[in-house]
Amino acid sequence: MLTYKKDYIVPYYESDANGNMKLPSIFNVALQLSGEQSMLLERSDVWLKENYNYTWIVVEYEVAINRLPIFNETISIETAARSYNKFFCYRDFIFYDQSGQVLLTITSTWVLLDFETRKVVHVADEIVAPYESEKISKIIRGHKFTALESDILERDYFVRFNDIDQNGHVNNSKYFDWMVDLLGFDFLSGHVPKQISLKYIKEVLYGVKVTSRAVLDKSDVLEAISKHEIATEELHAQAEITWQVKNG
Amino acid sequence: MLTYKKDYIVPYYESDANGNMKLPSIFNVALQLSGEQSMLLERSDVWLKENYNYTWIVVEYEVAINRLPIFNETISIETAARSYNKFFCYRDFIFYDQSGQVLLTITSTWVLLDFETRKVVHVADEIVAPYESEKISKIIRGHKFTALESDILERDYFVRFNDIDQNGHVNNSKYFDWMVDLLGFDFLSGHVPKQISLKYIKEVLYGVKVTSRAVLDKSDVLEAISKHEIATEELHAQAEITWQVKNG
Repeated sequence: MLTYKKDYIVPYYESDANGNMKLPSIFNVALQLSGEQSMLLERSDVWLKENYNYTWIVVEYEVAINRLPIFNETISIETAARSYNKFFCYRDFIFYDQSGQVLLTITSTWVLLDFETRKVVHVADEIVAPYESEKISKIIRGHKFTALESDILERDYFVRFNDIDQNGHVNNSKYFDWMVDLLGFDFLSGHVPKQISLKYIKEVLYGVKVTSRAVLDKSDVLEAISKHEIATEELHAQAEITWQVKNG
Repeated sequence: MLTYKKDYIVPYYESDANGNMKLPSIFNVALQLSGEQSMLLERSDVWLKENYNYTWIVVEYEVAINRLPIFNETISIETAARSYNKFFCYRDFIFYDQSGQVLLTITSTWVLLDFETRKVVHVADEIVAPYESEKISKIIRGHKFTALESDILERDYFVRFNDIDQNGHVNNSKYFDWMVDLLGFDFLSGHVPKQISLKYIKEVLYGVKVTSRAVLDKSDVLEAISKHEIATEELHAQAEITWQVKNG
């Protein structure tokens, strides 16, 4: 298992009103790092397209947060493609502060999609060999999401041109933007996320209006839980976030 | 006039569907650079707040684009606080490619705002002295904007939590996002901007619904011109953009 590591300084435009690094930016920077490792190992997205006509898709994230990086902080980010089986690849990201303390960890699940058939394909050994990941037979079960029930917050969002990646799909981190925005300024400036489970079900394309739905449970004084869905007529993504009171 | 220069590699999440660096990201990265120079010269935003209770506000941008930076390109960005008079400070940014060719230039106009009175204040010599800018008496006249007339495109946008900066206002680059989004995928994937004039009139706060309005003149085959407004009941920003046909 090869590790790729890089220092990063949090710029002002990736910091939120609290001075914390924005969650969508955390995903962006993590994915950028895995892309850099792939380029280094001659398995870039361009290589993958030219040789197989495949693309990588993230289907799940699990994030555990001790502390969010803050504006102008120098952090160190490490990533490794841990293991893979027939259909899934598992990649870890660890964000450290300058003293080597873990700020947050992300475990992610990836699949390979065939550009032509739009279907998930088998993971060919040649594609993942350079990462020196462990081949496993086990399929790691992700978070079990439950349906949203009462007191559902809801807002529509239009996909913007700048939400679209080079692959023609909505950027991964955008879903998260649509999800948390619903919780409002007062909640978001008083709480920080502690644990996030996020699942991508179906890609969103340009020109579409998506509905972001959420239920926020604040019955526990110290810890709130929000559940999220991004939907059109179909379900596109689900998330569950545990929040703690800021400085509390 | 002190120059601050830095190399930058365009990450995937700052690249649009065409593989070009997103315009809002260009403004973000430029502003980040001026912030870094200010920190280096001990004139950071924190210093400015603690010593004067002031903040910097950009009021105008003029951008001239030869070519947009592209995904994974190593570019070099240079900035300098060129000159100032009683109320305005003028700062330049130049983006270069690796062979030293100019990709684009940004000239920007800044004012100092008093946090308490919310009014523009005189530029004190002590604040700008470390930049070694030239003191001038002339006020540089910006672009003259005209009102939007017929065939007005229009869409509403809600300010999101992640649009808000640490200073509590909508991030500068966001206005641009609202403006260009209106032109649609087909136009934006077939055209690149050549010249941009952008003026900020009044800040947008959280919780507000803004209306983005545009008129697009495509009567010239090779060159289109779009005019933009961001408004609530008041006018918040105006822009005029000259576009050229991609690869044409």
